[in-house]
Order: sequence, then structure tokens, then C-alpha cells
Amino acid sequence: MMAAHGIEHMFEEVHRARDTLRGKARVTPVIQSSNLDEQLNASVFLKCESFQRTGSFKFRGAFNALSRLSPDIRKRGVITYSSGNHGQALALAGRLLGIATTVVMPEVVSVVKRAATQAYGAEIVTFKAEEDERESLAQRIADERGLTLIPPFDHRQVIAGQGTAALELMEELGLLDVLLIPCGGGGLLSGSAVAVKHMCPPCRIIGVEPEQADDAYRSFHSGRLQRIEQAQTIADGLRPQSLGELTFPLIMKYVDDMVTVSEAEIVAAVRYLFYRTKLVVEPSGAVALAALLGRRIEVNGRIGILVSGGNVDGETMHRILG
Amino acid sequence: MMAAHGIEHMFEEVHRARDTLRGKARVTPVIQSSNLDEQLNASVFLKCESFQRTGSFKFRGAFNALSRLSPDIRKRGVITYSSGNHGQALALAGRLLGIATTVVMPEVVSVVKRAATQAYGAEIVTFKAEEDERESLAQRIADERGLTLIPPFDHRQVIAGQGTAALELMEELGLLDVLLIPCGGGGLLSGSAVAVKHMCPPCRIIGVEPEQADDAYRSFHSGRLQRIEQAQTIADGLRPQSLGELTFPLIMKYVDDMVTVSEAEIVAAVRYLFYRTKLVVEPSGAVALAALLGRRIEVNGRIGILVSGGNVDGETMHRILG
Repeated sequence: MMAAHGIEHMFEEVHRARDTLRGKARVTPVIQSSNLDEQLNASVFLKCESFQRTGSFKFRGAFNALSRLSPDIRKRGVITYSSGNHGQALALAGRLLGIATTVVMPEVVSVVKRAATQAYGAEIVTFKAEEDERESLAQRIADERGLTLIPPFDHRQVIAGQGTAALELMEELGLLDVLLIPCGGGGLLSGSAVAVKHMCPPCRIIGVEPEQADDAYRSFHSGRLQRIEQAQTIADGLRPQSLGELTFPLIMKYVDDMVTVSEAEIVAAVRYLFYRTKLVVEPSGAVALAALLGRRIEVNGRIGILVSGGNVDGETMHRILG
Repeated sequence: MMAAHGIEHMFEEVHRARDTLRGKARVTPVIQSSNLDEQLNASVFLKCESFQRTGSFKFRGAFNALSRLSPDIRKRGVITYSSGNHGQALALAGRLLGIATTVVMPEVVSVVKRAATQAYGAEIVTFKAEEDERESLAQRIADERGLTLIPPFDHRQVIAGQGTAALELMEELGLLDVLLIPCGGGGLLSGSAVAVKHMCPPCRIIGVEPEQADDAYRSFHSGRLQRIEQAQTIADGLRPQSLGELTFPLIMKYVDDMVTVSEAEIVAAVRYLFYRTKLVVEPSGAVALAALLGRRIEVNGRIGILVSGGNVDGETMHRILG
């Protein structure tokens, strides 16, 4: 398997990514809530990547990946496909590093995400078809124009960058008993797991997925890579069809458990974050808290939660707050 | 004038309040936004009291005031009148200190604020009449039941507690060129001004009020205490009819300027905080940023903004996000 190659060195890559991101990515705040602690009889720490540049953790991986490119490749530009947050992140990282970016997006995408991606200076290419075609479309454009494809998660330097959020959290808080992490394509989950298992091996790493997009959950529990054809979940950032060739083995090796949450639990978590902790969090960003509030796992002690992003439009928030 | 008594010692009181609040109030995070910095060509620091316990800075003053009461007075209980945030704050502070609390509230008050106040264990007394009667109603109940009245702002220990937010901000950031602070009854503004002018005298202190509730603005610029009868502003926490006997002279002494903002500017600031900085902020909490975004003041360099609270209901947020 491709991914077996170099797994042991991934932690060093996360550390290098942290150096690369110093002064570029934000060291995001950790928020606590007395209400949450009382309700769960635990100490809960929300690592708020909603405050990261471009509104999600994705900036970490995108900036790290672009920073590693040679001058020649930088000059030609990069391309990616993204339902939103990775596209924004790549666009800003490109602007900061002087690299032209192209983002392949589905026509139907959050207004907020698309507008932000354009505002950061990316060229947008839209497409109508199903999700499984966008990767090949991006690859075709890359070949035609001599661009380098930076995929949204299955890329060593992207994974290493995403792992820096958990690295910061561990450095700030020391020991944690468990860390809950949203899982889409597995970039954040695998990067975080690498970081945490090297710094604090007893800390349990739990990935969280929507029930309606449970390919990683099924992959983890069966040990074989599973796909989902058309994930229908409000958590629009967690709709990738499967884990990747790099993220899957990392997750098998370093993650302790995977759980799923219902759509109602996701909505309740976004509401909770709005009313109780005063955080604007997108549905994808709230799934880890949803697992906790929905008692999908038995946890105690010091609990870390990765709140992965805050890019939600007013319309969606209104439906959620109802 | 009553307030002249002891003004010089107010900074010591703020310092004592900080000791009292240690481990009780939250040291709230300071959030930055690259977009804001670029737009204004400055460094802007948002001190987010929306993350304070009970969702606003008011917990600081309430807890500090209750902590100073004698055992005998504590046993009999306390009362206040509040359109929302001070009531919640007093209710929680009372619960933590084992002091029974009663809150006099207008019948028409934010659902979120009322529910939270009850959830913290306060007894609620509602009234129908205009705002100017609630103070006397609270005093009458206090006399009848032997309760001690803790007013929402015009109280030395309340003011001292509110000043601790700015104290933390200065300790974290060092020099600031200017600090913008929302002003209702002036508790937060006067406490902050005392703290900052002792720690960093060149830092300009600017109070911000809604145009539709501009009594403090007029008081400041005329030098005589002005009132407003029926303030109609979306910033429901900034509707007190006038500054107090303590807050007015402190503001005259320590505040450099007062400005006002329109309702449209307040709404725009709440939207900006939601979409750009991912913060849930109530209209009252957004007026200081509104003054900055609306270019109501000429400021440069390192700018502090007190984001005073986040208790907004979904209905109001929906109207604002449009």
C-alpha cells in the first residue's frame, strides 16, 4: 500500500509544518463552557478552527503544501477541487505566496464559500455532474495548463498541516483523555492522530462522521476502504466519497474508534454552539461536539473537541436555529 | 457630587476585583481578523466578553459585588432590575456564592435572557410599566423583603468588576493606541477607563452609544447629565435612561471621547462579526466595532474593541443576517 511508505516520519512532518505555519496560520483559541462541563461532568476544551484564517482548519494544510513547492512549480500555478473550505484555503495560501490558484467547484455550493474563494483571488471552474467527476476534471485541467494538483486531503503535506491544530492543543493543554475529530476525507483526523499519538499516546482519538456519510466509519470497522455514492448530509464539508490512500492507513493505525452522529444531533450541536458558547460553527465543524452531546461515546476526564470550521451562511443558520 | 468620593482609589478596586474573580470569571480570548486589519490598515483586537460566563461582561461586576457582601446580608439575599445581562450575571453569581437572587424584569424581554436568568435560579418579578419605574419597584421589594439592591451599573464594586476585562486586555497586549467600549449605563466604560488610564495613560478611551440612545453622548459633550425617555434601539443592553452618579463623573474624568452609531451600522457590525470573525455577538456588544467599521472615528495603530456580550436570540439574528 502506498501509504505505508513513510508513515513513521509523519510526526516530523507535522512538526515541520508547525514551523512553516508560524506567523502565517493563527494559533486558534481554546474555549470552555461551564454549562458543557456540568452537563457532562467533564472538562471539555473546544479548539476553535472556526477562527482560523479562511474560517476553517484547511488553511493549515493548504499553506503547508504550497510552501513546499519548488519555484518552478509555483510559477505555473496550482489547482484543486473542493466543495468549499479547501478551495478558500488554497486561494488565500496562494495569494500570500504569490501562486496562482484554480478551484474546481460544484455549481451548487454554499454562497459564502464560493464568494470567499473568489475574493481571495482564485479562478473558479464550476461543473454540474456528480462528485466523482470533479477529481478527474481537475486533473485534466491540470494536465492541459501545466498546473499542480493539490488535493483536499490525500496529500502528505496537507495532512501534516492539518495535524498542527492538535499539536497546538496538546502543547497548550498537556494531557487529554480523549480527542474527538470530524472526519470527511480524513486529512484532519489522520494528521491529528499522528500528532497526538506521538505526544500523548494514552489519549484516545475518536473520529466522528455523519450517519449519512458513514464511509469512513464502515472502512474503519471493516478494515477495508468503503465508499459512499451520494452523501446527503447538512455537514457539507464531510461529503467526500471515501478516505484516501494516505489517510485510510494512518487512520487504521492511529485512531482508536470511529462513531457516527445523526442529522438531528448535528443540528442540535450547531444550536448549542450558537446559544451556549456564542460560536458560529458550520455543521461539519460541529459533529465532534454532536457525538459528545448525543452520548455516542462513553468519555470522561479531559476531553478535546476539534471545532473544524465556521463557514455557514445565514440561510442555513436560520434553518438550524429555527 | 457623591462620585468624587474615592475616585482615586478606583484602580485599586479594579485590581482587587481581578483577584476576587480569579478562577471564577473566565479570562476571555482576544480574537484578531486579517480582513479587519487589512480593511482598516491597523491591528484590531477583539476582547470577547461574549465568551464570559452568562454570555457577557456583566458577570464580572455582579460576582465582585456579591463577593463583598457581609455574611448577614448574603443570608437575606439580593435583588436587581435588569433588561437581561446583569440579571443573568447576578443569578449565576448568587448561585455560586449561595445567595438568593431576585430579578425585576420588563415583561417584554429577550426570551434567551429571561430563560437563562431563571435557569440560573433567580426569582423573576416582571412588570409592565415604563422603564423608569423598575428601579423604584426593585427598591420597594428590597425594603419589604430585607433584600440588598445591587444596581446594574451605578455601584462601586460593579464598576470595579467590569474594569477587569480591560485590565486583562492590557496585560495581554501591552500598549494600545485606542480602546473602544460600548456605553449603556457606563459601568463597563467607566471601569475600563479607570483601568486603562492607570496602566497606559496615552491610550485613548472612546465610548460608543447608539444614536437612538445617545444620552451619555450628550452628557459627555455638554458636561451635564442628560436623560433619554424611551430609547428605541436594537441594542437592548444600551437602553438605560442615563449615566449614574458614579459612572458619569468617572467618564468625564477618564474618557477621551464619545461617539454614536446608527442602527444600520450596528446591524452591519453584527453581520460582520458573524460572517467574518465567526462570533455570535448581540447588537449591544457590536457597537464598538460598528464605530470602527462606520468610520465614526479616526484611529490608527493598535486598536482594542470590547465585544461586550453574545446573548442574542435566533429570531433577532435572523432579522440581522437577512
